[in-house]
Amino acid sequence: MSTNSIRKSVVLLSGGLDSATTLAIAGEQGFACYALSFAYGQRHSVEIEAAKRVAAAGKAVEHKIIHIDLAALGGSALTDNSLTVPKDRADMNDGIPITYVPARNTIFLSYALAWAEIIGAWDIFIGVNAMDYSGYPDCRPDFIAAYEKMANLATAAATQENRRFHIHTPIIQMTKAQIIRQGIGLGVDYAITHSCYDPDSAGRPCGHCDSCILREKGFAEAGLPDPAIA
Amino acid sequence: MSTNSIRKSVVLLSGGLDSATTLAIAGEQGFACYALSFAYGQRHSVEIEAAKRVAAAGKAVEHKIIHIDLAALGGSALTDNSLTVPKDRADMNDGIPITYVPARNTIFLSYALAWAEIIGAWDIFIGVNAMDYSGYPDCRPDFIAAYEKMANLATAAATQENRRFHIHTPIIQMTKAQIIRQGIGLGVDYAITHSCYDPDSAGRPCGHCDSCILREKGFAEAGLPDPAIA
Repeated sequence: MSTNSIRKSVVLLSGGLDSATTLAIAGEQGFACYALSFAYGQRHSVEIEAAKRVAAAGKAVEHKIIHIDLAALGGSALTDNSLTVPKDRADMNDGIPITYVPARNTIFLSYALAWAEIIGAWDIFIGVNAMDYSGYPDCRPDFIAAYEKMANLATAAATQENRRFHIHTPIIQMTKAQIIRQGIGLGVDYAITHSCYDPDSAGRPCGHCDSCILREKGFAEAGLPDPAIA
Repeated sequence: MSTNSIRKSVVLLSGGLDSATTLAIAGEQGFACYALSFAYGQRHSVEIEAAKRVAAAGKAVEHKIIHIDLAALGGSALTDNSLTVPKDRADMNDGIPITYVPARNTIFLSYALAWAEIIGAWDIFIGVNAMDYSGYPDCRPDFIAAYEKMANLATAAATQENRRFHIHTPIIQMTKAQIIRQGIGLGVDYAITHSCYDPDSAGRPCGHCDSCILREKGFAEAGLPDPAIA
């Protein structure tokens, strides 16, 4: 490959702290970033507005928002309004939480793979994290490795050309504090990100869901104030 | 497992000949079948009507139709109106066709996996076929095996319970004629199925696309008339 050729990557972008940092890392590595977000009937559609801000600030070449119908399948507190988002949980490592969305990352990565094949990208970035929060099975390194292997059998691109797709998980082994420190070093503006599972009607974070608690703990451990909190 | 317990399966259903036969095979094996179809901006939305008929005739317990936005990603003659569906191709085994939809089966299986996890099914049926038509990489046994392995790392169900998801591909090694003969033996009414990639405005098959040619060849080899042709 010529050193002048542009390497494209698809970056999954939720608008949260982890994916904003992941986008910054992909950009730092020299990739032209194609950001991909999903509107999936989640309660926190304010995420989409955050994703748009983060994509623009992170200089994404393009930002696609795909509407998907996970609510039609039900089964998660994030997509099913009849289930309650848990608050102030003492032990977040106690099994798989009700905010788990079945096969979510599998579905997200599958759209990313399709888009990557269409635009000629061989690299996909996803901001999964297995350290601070191990409750989601589709955030584990074993899952990512199996997905990557499958992706290289699934596509015409990998079949016809002698190249391979790579799924990058640059923050998978970082603590939340490490993620924040790295992001700040790369110029990420966390004021424009959104993490809460259950914001109020004005989009303000609840401060009590798992995601808010982890975020607060991360900024505390990094010794920094959270710029999204006025 | 008690012999009285109901085994649920998710069956991917396009409304074509292959998936109609696959649904019949799943039913014959004793599964309660949850049929899953996709409206994906395809030109042949007449498929969805066929899928509804086939699901009803095949006694599916439930039939979900998920709207997905593959057209937003582009890149296939089946979803992009600016590309032409090829007709009267002399050699259909000449590489990957323009009707290939990037990562389509990967995306379809990912929704099937999500629904399976939600309803407590451990079996997913997909009517892929690697014999008559090897142009699509995501119809090969290697792909299915890799997908199954990934699925068992992706989900809370497989992580918490000592069970495994199985991706069933009962017609993967059959010729089109064998598929038709088996389906007829199971009572499939092929008159209500639809195969054409490029039907006219009344939903009638063109008779010249790859899918029409394969179907015609299959019925000819099975020594039977196609009941969908008036």
